[in-house]
Amino acid sequence: MAAPSASYSITMRVLLDDPQGVGRITTAIGEAGGSIVALDVVDASASTLVVDLTCYARDGDHAEELTKAAGAVPGVAVRAVSDRTLLTHLGGVLATASKVALRTRDDLSMVYTPGVARVCLAIAEDKAAARNLTIVRNSVAVVTDGSAVLGLGNLGAKAALPVMEGKAVLFKTFADIDAWPVCLDTQDVDEIVRTVEVISPSYGAINLEDIAAPRCFAVEARLRERLDIPVFHDDQHGTAIVVLAALTNALRVVGKEIDAVRIVVLGAGAAGTAIIKILVATGARDIVAVDREGIVSAPSAGGDPTRQWLAHATNPGGLTGGIDEALAGADVLIGVSGSNLVSEAALATMASHAVVFVLANPDPEIDPEIARAHASVVATGRSDEPNQINNVLAFPGVFRGLLDAHAHEVTAEMEVAAARAIAGVVSADELSAAYIIPSVFNPAVVPAVATAVHQVAARQAASQ
Amino acid sequence: MAAPSASYSITMRVLLDDPQGVGRITTAIGEAGGSIVALDVVDASASTLVVDLTCYARDGDHAEELTKAAGAVPGVAVRAVSDRTLLTHLGGVLATASKVALRTRDDLSMVYTPGVARVCLAIAEDKAAARNLTIVRNSVAVVTDGSAVLGLGNLGAKAALPVMEGKAVLFKTFADIDAWPVCLDTQDVDEIVRTVEVISPSYGAINLEDIAAPRCFAVEARLRERLDIPVFHDDQHGTAIVVLAALTNALRVVGKEIDAVRIVVLGAGAAGTAIIKILVATGARDIVAVDREGIVSAPSAGGDPTRQWLAHATNPGGLTGGIDEALAGADVLIGVSGSNLVSEAALATMASHAVVFVLANPDPEIDPEIARAHASVVATGRSDEPNQINNVLAFPGVFRGLLDAHAHEVTAEMEVAAARAIAGVVSADELSAAYIIPSVFNPAVVPAVATAVHQVAARQAASQ
Repeated sequence: MAAPSASYSITMRVLLDDPQGVGRITTAIGEAGGSIVALDVVDASASTLVVDLTCYARDGDHAEELTKAAGAVPGVAVRAVSDRTLLTHLGGVLATASKVALRTRDDLSMVYTPGVARVCLAIAEDKAAARNLTIVRNSVAVVTDGSAVLGLGNLGAKAALPVMEGKAVLFKTFADIDAWPVCLDTQDVDEIVRTVEVISPSYGAINLEDIAAPRCFAVEARLRERLDIPVFHDDQHGTAIVVLAALTNALRVVGKEIDAVRIVVLGAGAAGTAIIKILVATGARDIVAVDREGIVSAPSAGGDPTRQWLAHATNPGGLTGGIDEALAGADVLIGVSGSNLVSEAALATMASHAVVFVLANPDPEIDPEIARAHASVVATGRSDEPNQINNVLAFPGVFRGLLDAHAHEVTAEMEVAAARAIAGVVSADELSAAYIIPSVFNPAVVPAVATAVHQVAARQAASQ
Repeated sequence: MAAPSASYSITMRVLLDDPQGVGRITTAIGEAGGSIVALDVVDASASTLVVDLTCYARDGDHAEELTKAAGAVPGVAVRAVSDRTLLTHLGGVLATASKVALRTRDDLSMVYTPGVARVCLAIAEDKAAARNLTIVRNSVAVVTDGSAVLGLGNLGAKAALPVMEGKAVLFKTFADIDAWPVCLDTQDVDEIVRTVEVISPSYGAINLEDIAAPRCFAVEARLRERLDIPVFHDDQHGTAIVVLAALTNALRVVGKEIDAVRIVVLGAGAAGTAIIKILVATGARDIVAVDREGIVSAPSAGGDPTRQWLAHATNPGGLTGGIDEALAGADVLIGVSGSNLVSEAALATMASHAVVFVLANPDPEIDPEIARAHASVVATGRSDEPNQINNVLAFPGVFRGLLDAHAHEVTAEMEVAAARAIAGVVSADELSAAYIIPSVFNPAVVPAVATAVHQVAARQAASQ
């Protein structure tokens, strides 16, 4: 059962007949399993008290239970209940800002007409001037078709917008990048590709987000071919970079080498495939991919090119069966699938000093507490557990580096360099089973990743 | 000849052997026709002085003359010259901003995952919730295909970006609207329409900009049909609104009525056509349209639907010829064409108490000084003349009103209401031949226009 958290927090306004009744409400909420994090007196008189109580709940049903528990206290009336996450998103979380003051006609004549004509002419003469004279040197399109919104599925373009806004806010906050949501009301590969191509002149890079597999592979491949700015599908490459960073440090903790371990990847969608690619690129030699139909092997691969690549690149031992068969004797489990798909019994058959990453959100493939009984290092996607694998560690620094380098593409070498940079933020002294990956709020992460990506980009550009 | 202005201002860094030489430089620049607006000492010693001189020039050639004039002064060396407009646009003029603080994991869990999932689900259940829970209630796409950039012509998507950024900055500064540049790398009507349709889920309204006629008419008409958010081509409707506002007050000054005057519109492109439409909608009965081929009349109209409409709606007197024939006896000239297309002799044949708007930019259809010798009221598009007809008076308030009203479309009635609101900002006491239209910096304009548009939108929505 999830712990109460800020992501599901409510504020209830309660009216008390008796000012002494506050204690009874907090007790009632506590007994119902809620955590009160703030208590603000709104209005007080000798005989009544109005109080805003903010508390963390586990989920929607739990929030209702807490409201009922407060209302059941004698002399207490609950006036209103508001969901703090919805309040946070009221009116959206992103805005534009002017970088120049417009106070006088002179300002106007330089920012807009007639002066701006000269800026346009400079770019018409030399397209490369747009790098310096427009927003493109710092702007990223956050593109989705709404087909795989978080773990929720195909919600469509409009319902995906809050995620894209949130992502743009992360870009701004962590890397001072101007990202803008591009929610596409189409799920046709040709149309997605053509639309992004047509709108690309305003952007210095493209971040693809929450596009379902296998469509995302085709969209990314074709955009990379057609555009001369970097295209990065964060659900694939961002996840792969952070997983590689965490695995690098986890293997240090258990004293194993990447080319000598057997790695089971559970889930062969966008994230799983990208993780396998980056592991192969860094020397992993024994990877077993498992999806809904079991261990991926040549005969079951079918016609899809990504699946065919997977079948060839993995399962050198020719294993058959499902996740239970795959885990027997394995050193590493990387789960990017769904909740509770791994049994404790199967985990118990892994090699000694096992490494287990169970990244399904919000509920991992197995309870991390149980996983820790059988593995030396455990990581999850959750913020309330140690070793959180979070894409926020990768994409802000990756795009900062790409934009600063004026890169035309993002390469596998840059991704590996980004992973090494993240892993390197955890020093040898600090490294432990409970600290293989830095916090997303560690200020050293973005500069380290940006510098690493920038250096590779500069080297690759120079050698072309 | 244009006066030196901020829109073409340069800063030159000069090194003087003799600290007393500053006076000789300022004299030399003044004699060459430049205006020095700032003088900053950068470095000084007993024998030398480094000074940054900022001066206004007329144009690029003049800026070079000024630089040469300074360099020709004995003991003076010009080290560097920078164009202040280009400096203003360095790195672009627009940015994004986060509306929420991201300081802790709790913030992260509400702005982004896992909390944001609840916001997405709320919209997936009820699309209308996006109005409240996303940026769409305040976001506008500034869309161009780069085919008619300012008066410069078909420069393409990339070179149009500085204008769209500037426009977005005006939206932010004047109406606190979050506008984002959408520069389309296509000039095909079908593709423009489909692209805007596909990206529309992130926006509350669409502003079309600098799209050449007649393509702009088809793009606008089809987008209005397909989208349930307002679509407004500023070059057409913004210009028409401000012209109607100015004409309303100009006719008050000369004591004439709109249904009794003959109005000549020179230029039958996007702006001219929209001006004629709004004039017809407000009761004008004798309009003569003149384009490159002369007075528009039925036989010359051809197959284009907009031209056919023009031929039917104008020229009730069946005039033939060109601008000279059209102006004889006319009460009003509205020029939205090119520089120096109207002769003084033709202007002299207009009716007494004529009204002349010569809006071609940067050089009007006739020198406004000459026009004032023959007309009672003269307006231009220039900021250095009285009565500047500037779209900035219309679009910020129009969009503010549309967004606040959650309008699904923009109607002719809203546009007329916006024009009346702008005209109404100039009180009867203030009204004169030199003050028919408020300044773009008059803080009363945007609220007046927004309220007028909002009211019409609410009334029209209620009556549907």
